[in-house]
Amino acid sequence: MRFIVADWGTTRFRGYLIENETVLDQVSSNEGVSALQKGQHRDVFLRQCGRWLEAEPKAPVLLVGMVGSREGWVEAPYASCPAGPAEIAGALVPVDLENGRQGHIIPGLFCEPAPGAADVMRGEETLVLGTGVEDGLICSAGTHPKWILMRGGRIERFATYMTGEMYALLREHSMIGRPASEPQDPKGFDLGLDAAERNQGDNGVGLLHLLFSARASVVSRRMDSGLLAPYLSGLLTGDEINGALSQFGRPSSVTILAEPGRADLYVHALERHGIKSEVKVPQEALIAGLARIVRQHAVG
Amino acid sequence: MRFIVADWGTTRFRGYLIENETVLDQVSSNEGVSALQKGQHRDVFLRQCGRWLEAEPKAPVLLVGMVGSREGWVEAPYASCPAGPAEIAGALVPVDLENGRQGHIIPGLFCEPAPGAADVMRGEETLVLGTGVEDGLICSAGTHPKWILMRGGRIERFATYMTGEMYALLREHSMIGRPASEPQDPKGFDLGLDAAERNQGDNGVGLLHLLFSARASVVSRRMDSGLLAPYLSGLLTGDEINGALSQFGRPSSVTILAEPGRADLYVHALERHGIKSEVKVPQEALIAGLARIVRQHAVG
Repeated sequence: MRFIVADWGTTRFRGYLIENETVLDQVSSNEGVSALQKGQHRDVFLRQCGRWLEAEPKAPVLLVGMVGSREGWVEAPYASCPAGPAEIAGALVPVDLENGRQGHIIPGLFCEPAPGAADVMRGEETLVLGTGVEDGLICSAGTHPKWILMRGGRIERFATYMTGEMYALLREHSMIGRPASEPQDPKGFDLGLDAAERNQGDNGVGLLHLLFSARASVVSRRMDSGLLAPYLSGLLTGDEINGALSQFGRPSSVTILAEPGRADLYVHALERHGIKSEVKVPQEALIAGLARIVRQHAVG
Repeated sequence: MRFIVADWGTTRFRGYLIENETVLDQVSSNEGVSALQKGQHRDVFLRQCGRWLEAEPKAPVLLVGMVGSREGWVEAPYASCPAGPAEIAGALVPVDLENGRQGHIIPGLFCEPAPGAADVMRGEETLVLGTGVEDGLICSAGTHPKWILMRGGRIERFATYMTGEMYALLREHSMIGRPASEPQDPKGFDLGLDAAERNQGDNGVGLLHLLFSARASVVSRRMDSGLLAPYLSGLLTGDEINGALSQFGRPSSVTILAEPGRADLYVHALERHGIKSEVKVPQEALIAGLARIVRQHAVG
């Protein structure tokens, strides 16, 4: 079965023509959702993918990511957890393409991690369905890493951390990261993981203190400035993992969805907790998840 | 006794002519340490305070704040905790003014909150000595709030939190704060304090998750956007207080050094822990602390 996909995020547009789980053709541009006004999305899609629409007049069309947000093409309301392929395929939101043909936006997911609290995702639900994990814990480690608990093939609940964005804030805009120097000494990552242990359990000293303390170690000449950037990365990653494990328990293994460099950091940090990791490539999981939703949609 | 003071921080220069604890005259400018190059500090000081030097040829001259940092006039090495008036007055660092006259930079303090960890202050040590608190816990609540434990009239140890800077980062540079709208609804502060409770103890979910969740509550329309900014303030302040109380124990009362608006937030947050507060004005504490160091220096 052939189908057409737009993986349409905040900063990038990526189009794929797919047969089963093989990419036959692809396009990409910087026409992300944040670069567009209401009313422009259809034209962008037709310009980028119109030739596939003509060549494959029966192919289903799926759109995934921030294209379904309030700032996107059409707002696709969040589906609620628990949600699996059936719930997600049942909540697809149609958009008009041309000549009466429709595409379908994959809804994001909402969950209530505590009474009155909220968490959301858009796009990761599709990657997660493509991992093949039916029961277990998945970490999708992008700018806003998400820890996702699978039960019986459905997304039971999840928690998002702003780890990657926080690292960028500290490096680019904060006096905490200002003393950091190049070349970086990667040993800082483990020192940051050590520091994160001081924020565990009943005697937790607070992440906001540990961040200030990192800077203080450099300005008081207790830590070399080349260690600071990896130290901040380790501290934030360690605090994220501590929080995720206390929310979701301590499994014997975790599935990590991340590019190799970032995945290695999580594998290493989880090893310190005695937890094994299986790393999966996000792009492959995305295609597999899309194929699963297309099949479900065709069946449903 | 008359003395001359420069309270010289990162962004402001403030000069005072003081008799005992009364300010007789004052000047201020935006010639903070970050606006100056090495070698400019003496000229700025003489231009701002030179007439007092002439009028009071015997008056001691004290300089306090970031003027003693690596980027300041002369680096005044950090004194180590525990430190009281005697230790601080004994570690003053002289600078040449004119005609053989000297001023003295008050050193900052260093402490080791855990083996290998570090924390530093420059300026708050002087405020703290001006509170008159001999035994107890003080919170100096500026951009980087510091919690300071006093024992027998000396600063025993302290911990700094980047709370205020973090709030500014989230509001100005992060997608977490972007959905916040005006007018602000101050009820959000208490909701943020509630959320901070979810990061206490063995089941702490992690501050980086709670921050993302605040945004998710707004984009999923579970929370009004006018609540978000006070919510973030409450979450950060609550997490700071939780960390500080777990580091320093839970006293029956805390002395707060802060301007009225900010002090009110701390008083309220501490009340929820059953802790009373006594609020002191930072400016008055600074003058009292300087007078104490001058007297000690004259004696020593």
